[in-house]
Amino acid sequence: MPKPMLQIALDTLTVDEAIENVEKIYKYIDVIEVGTILIASQGKKAIKEISNKYKDKIIVADGKIADAGSVFAMMFFDNGADFTTAICAAETQTIKSVLDTAKLYGKDKDVQIELTSNFNWKQVEEWKKIGIKQVVYHRSRDAQLAGVNWTQNDIKTIKKFDEMGFKVTITGGISLKDIEFFKDVNVYIFIVGRSIRDAENLSLEAQKFKDQIDKYYA
Amino acid sequence: MPKPMLQIALDTLTVDEAIENVEKIYKYIDVIEVGTILIASQGKKAIKEISNKYKDKIIVADGKIADAGSVFAMMFFDNGADFTTAICAAETQTIKSVLDTAKLYGKDKDVQIELTSNFNWKQVEEWKKIGIKQVVYHRSRDAQLAGVNWTQNDIKTIKKFDEMGFKVTITGGISLKDIEFFKDVNVYIFIVGRSIRDAENLSLEAQKFKDQIDKYYA
Repeated sequence: MPKPMLQIALDTLTVDEAIENVEKIYKYIDVIEVGTILIASQGKKAIKEISNKYKDKIIVADGKIADAGSVFAMMFFDNGADFTTAICAAETQTIKSVLDTAKLYGKDKDVQIELTSNFNWKQVEEWKKIGIKQVVYHRSRDAQLAGVNWTQNDIKTIKKFDEMGFKVTITGGISLKDIEFFKDVNVYIFIVGRSIRDAENLSLEAQKFKDQIDKYYA
Repeated sequence: MPKPMLQIALDTLTVDEAIENVEKIYKYIDVIEVGTILIASQGKKAIKEISNKYKDKIIVADGKIADAGSVFAMMFFDNGADFTTAICAAETQTIKSVLDTAKLYGKDKDVQIELTSNFNWKQVEEWKKIGIKQVVYHRSRDAQLAGVNWTQNDIKTIKKFDEMGFKVTITGGISLKDIEFFKDVNVYIFIVGRSIRDAENLSLEAQKFKDQIDKYYA
């Protein structure tokens, strides 16, 4: 089973705080996410400053695009994003326009569909048909606060996406233990946010996540 | 039938351009929307600068919140928004957390659910149950570009929301003719963006929209 990548989600309010975090964990991560919270707080300059500084990492602008696909895609790719996200509720036309824009920017640019529990498999078939390759499987922050845990149902759904040919990224309060929980499914990227950012020793915590991935995905 | 309000959507890339637009149409509009595009471009300061300048207008921060409800709601209300939006795909827990936060900020603060075609009536029942009062009925920008027009089906859906007790805002390339098309339904707000922003004479165009609303909603 291919080794999943490790992504840090930067949902800070300032770019400085985001960079301060990355500096501590730089060598353990593969992907840097400029979070929706950081984009809403600081705007596109957050994407630019972070992508300029970390040129050898994959940069995700977590735009959760819902409409005006090409406008957002151009804004994010122009500022150095490699991937951006579209929310599952977006019309398929919108998602297609993000994908078409990504193709114009180069073969390494891509769009990920951010899933909530409110999508249906008819939409997924449409995404497949237009050439979408990535989905982000998501336990919402508010669901986590309400105590919702990962279940076998999550495993089942992720396997279904995998069998349909999608690369699946997993996010939502991922802990070290969760890496083990997902060990039998193909995971493209694990996104970790507060588990690392709120740790006392960020570097040590990021290393633990990297080690855990190495352990369970040999 | 109560007279709908008129909202200008500011989906510009800079605050200066947004304010330049508002200055020309100020007296014809009731609601100013800091668009998702403008927020992604400039961050929360766009909301702050515009709300500071137009204190007697209702300010909407079109955040299309999908997760982390209270974090975004606090950010937007702290910067002067009166309403914010949550995307229909958000978990009901997320929407509730936006609504609960709005209540903490005062009785004039509210959240609107931004609809795409990808919602279901089970969700709508949930929104009703937690106390949501507003929805934004939406023809996507990308759908418009693909030539999708308003239909009797839209009228039917809007009437259903109205009968359930929701205030319905309508958006998506609204033209002067569209105001007449919707004359027999209760509309809380008409959102107009490019129809006014791209006009040769913005002031005259905004006045025409205001007159059209006065004509059909006596």
